[in-house]
Amino acid sequence: MSGKSAYSNPVYRTFEVHVLGSSAATPTSLRHTTAQALRFHNKWFLLDCAEGTQMQLRRMKIPMMRIHHIFISHLHGDHYLGLPGLLFSLHLLGRKAALHVYSPPGLREVIEVQFRVSGLVPQFETIFHEVVKGGELVYEDADLAVESLEMEHRIPCFGYLFREKPIERNIRKESISRYSIPVRQMAGIKRGKDLLMPDGKVVPNEEITRCPPRARSYAFCSDTAYTEKFLAQVMGVDLLYHEATFLQDKADIAKEKTHSTTIEAASLAKKAGAGQLMLGHYSARYKDMGLFLKEARQVFPNTILAEEGVVTQVSAFASGT
Amino acid sequence: MSGKSAYSNPVYRTFEVHVLGSSAATPTSLRHTTAQALRFHNKWFLLDCAEGTQMQLRRMKIPMMRIHHIFISHLHGDHYLGLPGLLFSLHLLGRKAALHVYSPPGLREVIEVQFRVSGLVPQFETIFHEVVKGGELVYEDADLAVESLEMEHRIPCFGYLFREKPIERNIRKESISRYSIPVRQMAGIKRGKDLLMPDGKVVPNEEITRCPPRARSYAFCSDTAYTEKFLAQVMGVDLLYHEATFLQDKADIAKEKTHSTTIEAASLAKKAGAGQLMLGHYSARYKDMGLFLKEARQVFPNTILAEEGVVTQVSAFASGT
Repeated sequence: MSGKSAYSNPVYRTFEVHVLGSSAATPTSLRHTTAQALRFHNKWFLLDCAEGTQMQLRRMKIPMMRIHHIFISHLHGDHYLGLPGLLFSLHLLGRKAALHVYSPPGLREVIEVQFRVSGLVPQFETIFHEVVKGGELVYEDADLAVESLEMEHRIPCFGYLFREKPIERNIRKESISRYSIPVRQMAGIKRGKDLLMPDGKVVPNEEITRCPPRARSYAFCSDTAYTEKFLAQVMGVDLLYHEATFLQDKADIAKEKTHSTTIEAASLAKKAGAGQLMLGHYSARYKDMGLFLKEARQVFPNTILAEEGVVTQVSAFASGT
Repeated sequence: MSGKSAYSNPVYRTFEVHVLGSSAATPTSLRHTTAQALRFHNKWFLLDCAEGTQMQLRRMKIPMMRIHHIFISHLHGDHYLGLPGLLFSLHLLGRKAALHVYSPPGLREVIEVQFRVSGLVPQFETIFHEVVKGGELVYEDADLAVESLEMEHRIPCFGYLFREKPIERNIRKESISRYSIPVRQMAGIKRGKDLLMPDGKVVPNEEITRCPPRARSYAFCSDTAYTEKFLAQVMGVDLLYHEATFLQDKADIAKEKTHSTTIEAASLAKKAGAGQLMLGHYSARYKDMGLFLKEARQVFPNTILAEEGVVTQVSAFASGT
């Protein structure tokens, strides 16, 4: 081990949650309904896409043309109603690149009927991926994997777990010159292989590399009643976004409406050993979000609020870095 | 004639245009796409319903529960995408009263598929009225009549002309006591009948009433290329809203995209003998709306800009009051 903490390791790449909307069910004059942009390194993803998302993207200067994958939790209006407008605008802006949309079944029909009645033929392809169960790998690239999480809601609803893939080891600068490490061996060494010298001698990997930073993860869990159905998947997650539509005194309403309270969200974060909890999806009846924070922190101190326009880093908070 | 101008006549009822959105095609970070709330006396109407309209209604403190009639010009997203969200919110707020929606065909399907995928059964009825040609009476009540106006656009598109019905004559206070006018004759006198005295004598209507204020009208014309198809209907209109997507130097693009320029909108207002012209539906490429005003006023001096959050009175501007 290098002894350096993950916090200071310069190898860490950007991994940020940009909150575009935080209100439940109906927007208020101040809060939009659910949408988040996720930035990982040079890629942008969208998580839910409520009414007004395209304007929020503009306000937060998020490059909508660089979004290629959109993950929709479920087909209640407060989680997808901004998608048609975003697609129309991408079309009008001349987008050519395909767009992937992940959601429970039904969204394709919603979008297609709207392009049909508008008389527009999109210049780009929208590829709909139907998510029908939790625990599935729904997206993967060289750096990230995204798994579905089964929520407990009135209609089929899925959260999404973004897992950074294991990060390659860092070859120490001084080792490169000292051993004249050939380029063809570098990829293997970064993955943990030992160095094979021309004379047949072997230099152990630990001597020439640094321990990589721990891969991070972000779980987006909305909308859901309290459930542990997806708990195993989110164990040790670094940042857990969990809906908290109500304060604890409305636990009965939360249950009836298949939503969660502050304490329920915090309890799940605690059970999961999450690094940090972000609350959101506040009922429009509330004005003072400080109460949400206060309640949840009684159970899970490292709690923050989803606030529109605020960017949160996904950091390797949990133990074992 | 009483000699009093319509301006000072206290009988005039509220007739206001509240601009909720003024941008064309795509919203900007500052401007929403098209929507207007029309207030006539104690009734509220909605003209187009772009993405974000329900939030704009909240911001402008317009009582959405009191909207019973929504007029949609056409099925391009920037004119209707806020409707599903508004309907979902009305449902969640417990609306029971029926809602009438007037639009070219296709909107019912757009709405119904969304209620279906969301698993929501609306508690109120939405009655869709298909508008398929101009010059038709599409709505009428005791005070107002609304006619369709045929626009020139890529897909079926209609403007709407709101005509206040002729206003009843005012019975002079002094006449009521002087002639002891019986209640049963009052309605007739307000409509212009003479007073019949118990002794068989006739008092001419003009002696006992004041000339009523002239009924006012508002025409909402968007989206359209320059056309005179609906000119006869809007002759002498008090307030003409006419789209002006482009400045005059983009007349070729306007024509290609079936939109209008400042000068075209102003020319139509002039030909119609309108009292006032309101421009709107500005292309997102423009920042300085002062240029729109400057150009249009060269042709039609009494021009104003549609500006979000601004309320404009529909006044009896035109001659003949």
